[in-house]
Amino acid sequence: MHTREEGMGKSKVLVVGGTGYIGRRMVMASLSQGHTTYVLQRPETGLDIDKAQMLLSFKKHGARLVEGSFSDHRSLVDALKLVDVVICTMSGVHFRSHNLLLQLQLVEAIKEAGNIKRFLPSEFGMDAARMGEALEPGRVTFDEKMRVRKAIEDAKIPFTYVSANCFAGYFVGNLSQMGTLFPPKQYVNIYGDGNAKVVFMDEDDVATYTIKTIDDPRTLNKIVYLRPPENILSQRELVEKWENLVGKKLEKITISADDFLASMKGLDFASQVGVGHFYHIFYEGCLTNFEIGEGGEEASKLYPDVKYKRMDEYLTLYL
Amino acid sequence: MHTREEGMGKSKVLVVGGTGYIGRRMVMASLSQGHTTYVLQRPETGLDIDKAQMLLSFKKHGARLVEGSFSDHRSLVDALKLVDVVICTMSGVHFRSHNLLLQLQLVEAIKEAGNIKRFLPSEFGMDAARMGEALEPGRVTFDEKMRVRKAIEDAKIPFTYVSANCFAGYFVGNLSQMGTLFPPKQYVNIYGDGNAKVVFMDEDDVATYTIKTIDDPRTLNKIVYLRPPENILSQRELVEKWENLVGKKLEKITISADDFLASMKGLDFASQVGVGHFYHIFYEGCLTNFEIGEGGEEASKLYPDVKYKRMDEYLTLYL
Repeated sequence: MHTREEGMGKSKVLVVGGTGYIGRRMVMASLSQGHTTYVLQRPETGLDIDKAQMLLSFKKHGARLVEGSFSDHRSLVDALKLVDVVICTMSGVHFRSHNLLLQLQLVEAIKEAGNIKRFLPSEFGMDAARMGEALEPGRVTFDEKMRVRKAIEDAKIPFTYVSANCFAGYFVGNLSQMGTLFPPKQYVNIYGDGNAKVVFMDEDDVATYTIKTIDDPRTLNKIVYLRPPENILSQRELVEKWENLVGKKLEKITISADDFLASMKGLDFASQVGVGHFYHIFYEGCLTNFEIGEGGEEASKLYPDVKYKRMDEYLTLYL
Repeated sequence: MHTREEGMGKSKVLVVGGTGYIGRRMVMASLSQGHTTYVLQRPETGLDIDKAQMLLSFKKHGARLVEGSFSDHRSLVDALKLVDVVICTMSGVHFRSHNLLLQLQLVEAIKEAGNIKRFLPSEFGMDAARMGEALEPGRVTFDEKMRVRKAIEDAKIPFTYVSANCFAGYFVGNLSQMGTLFPPKQYVNIYGDGNAKVVFMDEDDVATYTIKTIDDPRTLNKIVYLRPPENILSQRELVEKWENLVGKKLEKITISADDFLASMKGLDFASQVGVGHFYHIFYEGCLTNFEIGEGGEEASKLYPDVKYKRMDEYLTLYL
């Protein structure tokens, strides 16, 4: 594959949060695009054997582990001095872990290190800047991301924010049903008219596009939206793809906006956050109800050589 | 590779606990040894995306997912009816999850299904039958395993118990230090004289040997001990292998049995369990202080064709 970067000097990358759901893919994409790749190894991993063995497997693939802790500023600065680019993928998903504000410490360390040419904070969802009217309590995600952005921009740290929209593992395999990660068998809940356009992304493609941005002057201090045209689908279109694969129609249960919002009552905090986000995505169409303006770029236009995964192919995994 | 089973009918296998640390290796070993392999898919997986994607990756490798829940007896019976052999790898490690007694429900389902030719319950550690004098609170592991054994034997269910000794991920990469999974850099705690013989096993080899037993009449109603001769090492020998790899001596800190036991005080339950197990292994030498008798077989003698991983090779991962 020929890319526009080929032959140019490749930045060295540090991934913070490399054992997470998106981070592990960043590590592999960074390696496969030829970047010297460091992964922060935090003592907090403790006895988590899955994380430990993932770190070892990165090493096997050529990554370098560098020890550092968020409770040791010096160690972060030292790790940063090894690289040019930092990608942070600390989780902001409330039912996993939510560490977004730890990034403020990372910003401090980047300021001190002084050598970082590009910082990609943990975004990879909706564009937080467009979520100023988001519902409580889900808005915490966007508010925290905006605090981190402000710290980055106040410090004049070069950045790229990647808006990666809906990860397929959470939104496609389950036909966007809540509370499960597998396709429903009989009934499918349809949010409103089911026609709001959503953007679904294979997680490996999220990483591939992200790594492509890091040495690209076109994405400097920009928001990069992942909106590959064939993956802009309504929930109804997604369900139809599945129905075509299984050769069977599912019964549709329409959920009105009011009923959906009412369902938040009595749920635990993480689930309330989830309902709010689903509402903005599927009822308001927040992923696609705007044009990408001045400060933004669209990834599949920047990198037309990436063969992104289509959602009917993604769904075959679940057959 | 030619094995004695080659050409014979291969049993169909169900793995219960297939997304766990050992279970995932059982699934892959079962597939690679040519068994039709089912993995129980439990609704309890919920929104655990790592488990969900592991299940999908098993499918990609040719495994079949079968839905079932421990809160639905019928579903377990139906899943069992698809296979000949059941391997249960539900965790008994207290700092992960401990579900050993759920297996009593599995025994009930196996009784009702009536077609299971071999059941391998979640053992894969020390031989529980030899741990009658084990310390509180760690003895809970052995007591629970013995309750499960009794239920199996009372029901006359054909079994194999695999005593897999020390998983290398937990005992080798850290030179058997507690509280970490990576090698110490300066000092290493040595338990007593450091000369008690221990058996260290690569986890993939545990799975390879285990799957080899399932259709083998020599292992019917037997305990199979994994004791490949070159992996019977004292802690000092293990440390020396690492020192040879890094070309540097570590400072040794000897911990007396009394001091080690005293360290249990004030620890949380899971850590107390850990200290007790370490005590039996490293001070009492419980893995090797007996000859394998009538009811047992040794795996590397039964399957000399398996090229088991040596611990110096295993340790190179950590360099």
